[in-house]
Amino acid sequence: MRFLAKDLTTAARDKKDTEIEVSGWVHRIRDMGGITFVVLRDRSGLAQLVFDQKPEDSGGALTLESVICASGCATLNEKAPGGAELRVKSFKTLSKAAPDLPYQVNADILKMGLETILDNRLLSLRNPKVQAIFKVQATIAAAFAEALRKQDFTEIKSSKLVGSGTEGGTELFTVEYFDRKVCLAQSPQFYKEVMVASGLERVFEIAPVYRAEKHDTPRHLNEYVSLDVEMGFIESEKDLIELEKNVLAHIFEEVAQKNPGELEMWNARVPDSGAVANAPTVPYDESLRIANGEAAKTRGAGASSRIFDMNPEAERLICEWAKREHGIDLVFVNEFPRRYRPFYTYPLDKGEEGTAVSTMSFDCLFRGLEITSGGRRHHDYNAFVETLPRFGIKSEEMPGYCALLKYGCPPHGGFAIGLERLTEKILGLSSVKEASLFPRDRKRVEP
Amino acid sequence: MRFLAKDLTTAARDKKDTEIEVSGWVHRIRDMGGITFVVLRDRSGLAQLVFDQKPEDSGGALTLESVICASGCATLNEKAPGGAELRVKSFKTLSKAAPDLPYQVNADILKMGLETILDNRLLSLRNPKVQAIFKVQATIAAAFAEALRKQDFTEIKSSKLVGSGTEGGTELFTVEYFDRKVCLAQSPQFYKEVMVASGLERVFEIAPVYRAEKHDTPRHLNEYVSLDVEMGFIESEKDLIELEKNVLAHIFEEVAQKNPGELEMWNARVPDSGAVANAPTVPYDESLRIANGEAAKTRGAGASSRIFDMNPEAERLICEWAKREHGIDLVFVNEFPRRYRPFYTYPLDKGEEGTAVSTMSFDCLFRGLEITSGGRRHHDYNAFVETLPRFGIKSEEMPGYCALLKYGCPPHGGFAIGLERLTEKILGLSSVKEASLFPRDRKRVEP
Repeated sequence: MRFLAKDLTTAARDKKDTEIEVSGWVHRIRDMGGITFVVLRDRSGLAQLVFDQKPEDSGGALTLESVICASGCATLNEKAPGGAELRVKSFKTLSKAAPDLPYQVNADILKMGLETILDNRLLSLRNPKVQAIFKVQATIAAAFAEALRKQDFTEIKSSKLVGSGTEGGTELFTVEYFDRKVCLAQSPQFYKEVMVASGLERVFEIAPVYRAEKHDTPRHLNEYVSLDVEMGFIESEKDLIELEKNVLAHIFEEVAQKNPGELEMWNARVPDSGAVANAPTVPYDESLRIANGEAAKTRGAGASSRIFDMNPEAERLICEWAKREHGIDLVFVNEFPRRYRPFYTYPLDKGEEGTAVSTMSFDCLFRGLEITSGGRRHHDYNAFVETLPRFGIKSEEMPGYCALLKYGCPPHGGFAIGLERLTEKILGLSSVKEASLFPRDRKRVEP
Repeated sequence: MRFLAKDLTTAARDKKDTEIEVSGWVHRIRDMGGITFVVLRDRSGLAQLVFDQKPEDSGGALTLESVICASGCATLNEKAPGGAELRVKSFKTLSKAAPDLPYQVNADILKMGLETILDNRLLSLRNPKVQAIFKVQATIAAAFAEALRKQDFTEIKSSKLVGSGTEGGTELFTVEYFDRKVCLAQSPQFYKEVMVASGLERVFEIAPVYRAEKHDTPRHLNEYVSLDVEMGFIESEKDLIELEKNVLAHIFEEVAQKNPGELEMWNARVPDSGAVANAPTVPYDESLRIANGEAAKTRGAGASSRIFDMNPEAERLICEWAKREHGIDLVFVNEFPRRYRPFYTYPLDKGEEGTAVSTMSFDCLFRGLEITSGGRRHHDYNAFVETLPRFGIKSEEMPGYCALLKYGCPPHGGFAIGLERLTEKILGLSSVKEASLFPRDRKRVEP
């Protein structure tokens, strides 16, 4: 019967005279002359195997990354990692790894450059610390869904092939769809709104989105997983901020509970859920003043360069301020000026779109990085049609949106959390690309 | 305080003298002269509102599909749907629907043609019976994930943009990715295998897949949601069939428990989980014999036309046979001949690929339709490299697969369930397109 690495100590206590089996990958081999220690890796972790002699199979010496199945007795040993080891009586090789391993799977990932890690993705994904990233990511996605299901949200699956970009914009990838061209969806925005307007009221979706952005930075991916939410019958973006706090608190709790080992590997902690409730909401203009105040402290009050918009430096500074003043580096910046938000964003001063300088919108910044954008949307057909020309859009160019609002649509809004960005910030990774199994950027479409 | 339609009866009992609020869509209006009945639709269902006079807002008469918020007292009334109604004291219109509704939301969906339903998708999605499809679908996806998480599977998110088709094939959509062309993934097959080989061992993914198939039938979608599973350390496809039975049983249980109302709307039943365990596994050759036997019964024994492969007619016939003989119209057909399966499928006679006529593969047929394809895969590098030329493939053309197998890969396999097909068959829909929110076929990329 197969035992997992994590259960070896239990086996050593309960079944010490029974022969048991473990299976997995040869993670490390230490030849001590008389005996050989092999560290075996399986889905649950690492286990130490002790061989009385140099382990060999029909193809010669055991190689790193080979998959083997070993039988023997589990024995408590304080010096072994985990407190137990397997004294191997016999083993068989299920898959022999070639000896020319081009990447050192068991090396410290922090000593590897990002390019090396990604160029050897099939092998770097075998590193336990890299796998920890994706175990945490799986918890995040599941907790996001669970928090929303508890509040009566329905999960939807919308198409990623769209006839045209709902937000317009040039940052779209084109797909040859039989005899015509369509685009890869940059967001499920329109479809979420359709489903709210349909009467489902509360929906979420976990799916890939596509941005043909040309910049290649540690903040950007051309394909990422978007945790999308849309909700009817809200008053303002503040309802959405409350919802996101609730969702994030649940995610942090679940990660703390399900992934303590993974957090430890990365020397990471999640905020506690009490702290999340204290995260401040700061209007855009005030957040710029705060960012400039913080910048002045660092640079000296006389420094001339000023921060004029919510750029990466401002995001970092305002999180530092929140950490100091509110005990958590999580901030909601709301009331963004009209010019920074898409045409469907609801104006702050109802019915006075013409003079409205700000919107019912928000970003969520976590540990110095924007992880969420959201807001209330237009729901009134007439107000929407009046607004469009201010964005240089004709209502004929937006038949979908017009049809959506024309036949009854409740006040609503939503937000989206970037799954890779949230993973990155929870674990303190150096780039969002590390949090994507197979990242896509300007030069990378393989593996 | 807002009450949902489903809670109106409780409100009528517990809060009969308190004014409460309900919000939702005007689903039906019945003007009885003196009083007007309005059926309101919200995310929980339907509620009857009673107005003492013809309801009007500042824009005139109330229109179908307008979103309103009504206040009044809930009262028990045996004749009202659900056993209670709201005597409206006041209401406000949150969003007035234009009076020229181009599609009758409250009509019986079974009386609408599929083209009409899909051409009016923004409105047909408002029909309660259509929404029921997607409530059931959400339960299916969640139950699939839950069943697998319980068995230590990790959810993954792989890229949908691939440098080349892992299965080769011409049924790929092309994407213009900056200055080159890539493809939309027709399956996460390769990535699932990478993650099993990484040491995660057990993975699943819920994500869209793309098939540029030109045929437009009630069985096909060009974009669908694939419920994908891959698992290490298996002996044969029979381990996968056991796993799928377990997963399907959990899905059926959850749908029965969470969606009784939706099942009733469609006059549908799910198999009970005991029956799922009885689903037969029939080797390919035998299943053809059975299908021909069934066909002969219908056509008369002397009929000449024979079934030579597992075509839609054979799928239907073998499910009828299983229903009669095993009490459930769920069948696993295994041991497909080599010619019907992709190159990575494991041969049935180990090490004798040259003479192997069948493979460790299976399909799952449910209520007459193939909903799953799966099998064990090659895991031995040398055997794989020897096999490729038989498919006319050079190993240089498969650098990814070769790298995957070269450095240690356990025996493994997996399967994929088509989410829309499973939804269709659970509810007895007439086309798989009905089970896709925004179906994509040869002519349809909108909305």
